[in-house]
Amino acid sequence: VSGAGAIDFYFEFSSPYGYIAAELAEDLENRIGRPLRWRPMLLGPIFKITGQPPLIEIPLKGDYARRDFVRSARQHGIQYNHPAKFPIGTVAALRAFYWVDDQRPGEGPSPRQGALPRLLRTRHRHQRAAAVVEIAKSLGVDGTALAAALDDPGVKERAKKEVEAAIAAGVFGSPYFIVDGEPFWGWIGWRCWSSGSNAGGW
Amino acid sequence: VSGAGAIDFYFEFSSPYGYIAAELAEDLENRIGRPLRWRPMLLGPIFKITGQPPLIEIPLKGDYARRDFVRSARQHGIQYNHPAKFPIGTVAALRAFYWVDDQRPGEGPSPRQGALPRLLRTRHRHQRAAAVVEIAKSLGVDGTALAAALDDPGVKERAKKEVEAAIAAGVFGSPYFIVDGEPFWGWIGWRCWSSGSNAGGW
Repeated sequence: VSGAGAIDFYFEFSSPYGYIAAELAEDLENRIGRPLRWRPMLLGPIFKITGQPPLIEIPLKGDYARRDFVRSARQHGIQYNHPAKFPIGTVAALRAFYWVDDQRPGEGPSPRQGALPRLLRTRHRHQRAAAVVEIAKSLGVDGTALAAALDDPGVKERAKKEVEAAIAAGVFGSPYFIVDGEPFWGWIGWRCWSSGSNAGGW
Repeated sequence: VSGAGAIDFYFEFSSPYGYIAAELAEDLENRIGRPLRWRPMLLGPIFKITGQPPLIEIPLKGDYARRDFVRSARQHGIQYNHPAKFPIGTVAALRAFYWVDDQRPGEGPSPRQGALPRLLRTRHRHQRAAAVVEIAKSLGVDGTALAAALDDPGVKERAKKEVEAAIAAGVFGSPYFIVDGEPFWGWIGWRCWSSGSNAGGW
């Protein structure tokens, strides 16, 4: 890990490991001295390509995952409440993210402070567009404009292109980092390569 | 990670990550001061339960895996030659392992030195029982007895029971560690929990 360019940080709002990675993102940026470019995507279309069911629906692996979500969060002191309905639909959250992001070009590609972390932290309510709008409003976003944007063909297309770009980049899970062309899947893998002793060792 | 009991180390002879873990096993034992109990198993029957194809056959994920096998080995200075035929059949290697292991009860459950590492390092030849016998012979094992054992119903049953035990323990991938009842999938996860700072943090 060298240079000062942004690291692509792909994640799905519904993903517990994506959530853990997002919660630790600022710490990571500080540690390695490079910004993350937040690139939320949807796992649904990706799992259609890979032929994978949602993680927790896989026999044996699903039970492990439920346990690992909780202990992984606990290990890092991150509050994690597994949603009753899981996985959740995150299309509205995705569109809202890119729409809000596009409204604030002056703040760069990574709105670390503000809407995104809040959206993530309350992601168990994201299945309904109305909930996403309420969350955004609480952050000062124009709720009426956002509600209209969520049904706007251009906004839908914008979000869709992001998912297609993730697929074209080889992304198949959440979180997924691309550092100077080198891909890393999973928050635990990232923890290892970013831990200093291994940085640049790939 | 506390106490002095053995840690169950499940792996499949065909698994690149299982191979990396096996190569690093002695280092792990020295670092944490606990022995590993080597428990080879078969991923074929497990993948039937989980509904997963072999890793490298999964779109997107397979390409990532091929790249990650090589870089992961390189990062640890481990020689890794991806076999031309992959995944490979490892039933003969599995039966040979437990048969040889049963012949040497005085050496305990973890034959770290000797037959096993050699079998692993040359695992790309394991698809044929004859190759397994040749490897074992080079290590001083009675080849004639081993060749007979590989077709022995009791030996077959012994190996089968081990695979069933792995499934009953929740094992769905390779490597897979169980430490005092706590399961850890993957060599990279193990590297994290065994790195000292995280030990016992689960």
